[in-house]
Amino acid sequence: MLLCIRECNPMPDPHQRELMLKQDKSQQVGGRVELTAAERQLDSLLYQLKLKEMAASPFPPANHFFKVRHIVQKSPVFKLLQKMPKGAALHIHSSAMVSVDWLVMNATYRPHCYICFTWDGSVQFLFSASTPFLRWGCSFWKRLDVLRASLSDVTAFDKSLMRNLTLFTEDPETSYPTQDAAWDRFEKIFMALSGLITYAPVFKDYVYQGLKELYEDNIMYLELRVGQSKAYELDGTTHDRAWSLEVYRNITEQFRSNHPDFIGSRLIFSVHRSLGVSQVKQAVQEAIEMQRKYPDIVAGFDLVGREDTGGSIWYFRDALSLPSEIKTQLSFFFHAGETDLDGTDVDRNVLDALLFNTSRIGHGFALVHHPLAKQLSKTRGVAVELCPISNQVLKLVSDLRNHPAAVLMSDGHPIVVSSDDPTLFGTTGLSYDFYQVFVGIGGLSANLGTLKELAMNSIRYSSLSPQLQDEALTVWKEKWNKFVADNS
Amino acid sequence: MLLCIRECNPMPDPHQRELMLKQDKSQQVGGRVELTAAERQLDSLLYQLKLKEMAASPFPPANHFFKVRHIVQKSPVFKLLQKMPKGAALHIHSSAMVSVDWLVMNATYRPHCYICFTWDGSVQFLFSASTPFLRWGCSFWKRLDVLRASLSDVTAFDKSLMRNLTLFTEDPETSYPTQDAAWDRFEKIFMALSGLITYAPVFKDYVYQGLKELYEDNIMYLELRVGQSKAYELDGTTHDRAWSLEVYRNITEQFRSNHPDFIGSRLIFSVHRSLGVSQVKQAVQEAIEMQRKYPDIVAGFDLVGREDTGGSIWYFRDALSLPSEIKTQLSFFFHAGETDLDGTDVDRNVLDALLFNTSRIGHGFALVHHPLAKQLSKTRGVAVELCPISNQVLKLVSDLRNHPAAVLMSDGHPIVVSSDDPTLFGTTGLSYDFYQVFVGIGGLSANLGTLKELAMNSIRYSSLSPQLQDEALTVWKEKWNKFVADNS
Ligand SMILES: [Zn+2]
Ligand SMILES: [Zn+2]
Repeated sequence: MLLCIRECNPMPDPHQRELMLKQDKSQQVGGRVELTAAERQLDSLLYQLKLKEMAASPFPPANHFFKVRHIVQKSPVFKLLQKMPKGAALHIHSSAMVSVDWLVMNATYRPHCYICFTWDGSVQFLFSASTPFLRWGCSFWKRLDVLRASLSDVTAFDKSLMRNLTLFTEDPETSYPTQDAAWDRFEKIFMALSGLITYAPVFKDYVYQGLKELYEDNIMYLELRVGQSKAYELDGTTHDRAWSLEVYRNITEQFRSNHPDFIGSRLIFSVHRSLGVSQVKQAVQEAIEMQRKYPDIVAGFDLVGREDTGGSIWYFRDALSLPSEIKTQLSFFFHAGETDLDGTDVDRNVLDALLFNTSRIGHGFALVHHPLAKQLSKTRGVAVELCPISNQVLKLVSDLRNHPAAVLMSDGHPIVVSSDDPTLFGTTGLSYDFYQVFVGIGGLSANLGTLKELAMNSIRYSSLSPQLQDEALTVWKEKWNKFVADNS
Repeated sequence: MLLCIRECNPMPDPHQRELMLKQDKSQQVGGRVELTAAERQLDSLLYQLKLKEMAASPFPPANHFFKVRHIVQKSPVFKLLQKMPKGAALHIHSSAMVSVDWLVMNATYRPHCYICFTWDGSVQFLFSASTPFLRWGCSFWKRLDVLRASLSDVTAFDKSLMRNLTLFTEDPETSYPTQDAAWDRFEKIFMALSGLITYAPVFKDYVYQGLKELYEDNIMYLELRVGQSKAYELDGTTHDRAWSLEVYRNITEQFRSNHPDFIGSRLIFSVHRSLGVSQVKQAVQEAIEMQRKYPDIVAGFDLVGREDTGGSIWYFRDALSLPSEIKTQLSFFFHAGETDLDGTDVDRNVLDALLFNTSRIGHGFALVHHPLAKQLSKTRGVAVELCPISNQVLKLVSDLRNHPAAVLMSDGHPIVVSSDDPTLFGTTGLSYDFYQVFVGIGGLSANLGTLKELAMNSIRYSSLSPQLQDEALTVWKEKWNKFVADNS
């Protein structure tokens, strides 16, 4: 028999164990946040509510969001998260920022709205003074008011329109059996939305409505990815990029004058990664110009679209080094690592985003597979924009408890929560995504400190100047304290 | 316009980027293994084969193993992995170590085998000289040879028996909608298997057959978790623990005399975590005694069964510190972190296993959520026993690319691959699990170096003495070189 000198199978010292458990917990996002007495009270309440939610079946984060949205909506945790001041939304695309209800019940009910049903089962919209020419695979255009007048069940028709403009469905597994199928539908909906929301009068109201939906979900600031599509008028003339920028600025100002506690919005120019290098270079050039003209609202530049099938960051390296060549500063906010193709070229985007000094990483789903990049982004304070519902709908992960952000969260990695494309995922604001992060990805470890840090992160990792960040944090803190006082 | 002094948006130096990508890759499991020219050739072949496999649909690791096993069986990568000398199997349970075909076609065809169908739709077996008493929810016992003689379709009957003794089914989502359902069935099958495999004559052949199936899959050494059930004879008398140990020793010796390149097997005493503290203490006591009597084949001690519903390691702390109290060495090989209940008591098992100086961690599925424990186990060289198919079948993860071991692998964490319960999962040997690790979890990053390190790990992290490890590695290397030469 072996004799044990001292160090083998010791009974662990309970005190030291306590310390280690604390240290483990303190390392997580929000682990070092000191809670006030009132906050601790709210924290216990949240803990109890979450315990109940974790014991119930089905447990929403373990299931496809489309199948459990109605359960989430009834969750007491979710209702608290709706009331919580969540700070800023830093990863939303301009083409999918409002609820589909508004699009159908408001936008499509406006005069001069034409619709066509394309050969591939999708729809297109166009506002026009007269019947538009055939294009985009349309066999005919029909004016919507005329069409609706001819229908016996307009409600059913409107519902079918809504289904056409969102990925939401009760049976997601059958509708989207593969990533390809989900992405295919995803890109098609963007095409369908385009004619509707780029019509100049709609566009203005759309932006206002987008801000309103965020504001109503207790979001106070927005950084919006804006694409390259141009606004148009009834006679078919189009506006240039500057026009759109001014709309964003003016509508935001208008919204702020009605809601003074909304801080504002800034824009991230986004080009699709299916384009060629020279086209991307041109877009970078344009972003630099726009930033010079509108430094207050232009935050930077990004590449969007599916990474698995589009050009990689390294592929676009010549375009992306343009700012440095002409000695200009242009901030990057790259989508990177929204993939499960571990070990491929695409999978290098996270490292390349960091090498190009990205300010944040969109998704960063693959980041945990790259210890070097992970360490780099943590040290440099490059926040990951975590959009869990988007990742689930686009089939990167099914049970959100297995979302790699659980690793980042437990490691205290800089993270902000966002919603990517609310229109398409059947969400509004950030509360749904916060719910998944708080209840699913964070598990029982995530507490009120986590929520507080996530909200503060959204301001700290925004593109706002340090001074504006301080101002925003002051406004946020007041809201936060009121939220805690009201609910503890 | 902001002017850029030097460091903003630089064009990354391609040379430095190359270095970083290399460093990222070198950090993974097998990342520092130097390959010979022949190995590099085999590596390219594997890479090409894997590329093809990743482009095909369905991609096996993304789907439930039961639905794609027949596809895996045809995979050229899988066929190479079958031929590969994989070293040791360090995490297999004695009650589920042989294929269900052998159990039904061999064991149940022996004389005196009685069967009963229980009220809850399961079966029980018992070998007996006369009709056994009713128990275990049986309404009657039927002798199998008599029963078979009365049936018109014996093949169909045998197939249904097989279905009863494994979790394998073509429609796993419907059969096991929840973790509870899967675990329930899992525990039931163990009960059904028990009467069959603990019958002394079957037991001896069963152990031999288990070694044979591993050997045929190019495994050279086994560490087996053995439970507390006792072997019995036809007259109902039972044998004690020492008898079983001697069977394991003698059968292993017999197997080795027929297959001299098989190194041997050692045992890890396992008790179910549904027991009370005093029962576990007794089991620890017994393990210590058995280790004293049979130091060559007793490797250590473990707690088994579902962690979510059983006692935690900390709950059993008094029992587990017995060796230290009486100044004896008993190695622990704890199942820990086979859970997705992040932040709960159960979830602390990984840390507690380490505090109790565990030699390896069974599953460690939750380890990546605990940076402190993860660091500790890496520094101390505590290997994680990775059993991906088990984790998928027991519903911890669906798409294996999201298995947390991907994080451990990319970080070079000590890992060994095993199969947990081959009978229940419809596998034999380790090749299926190696396939999932190599093609799914490891992605394109995993290469021949990864496989080589995983195989060597299985010897390095075994309970064998350093000297026996060296001997084993020498035998393994010879096999490995032959494998490489034959396939490059
Ligand atoms: Zn996005
Ligand atoms: Zn096990």
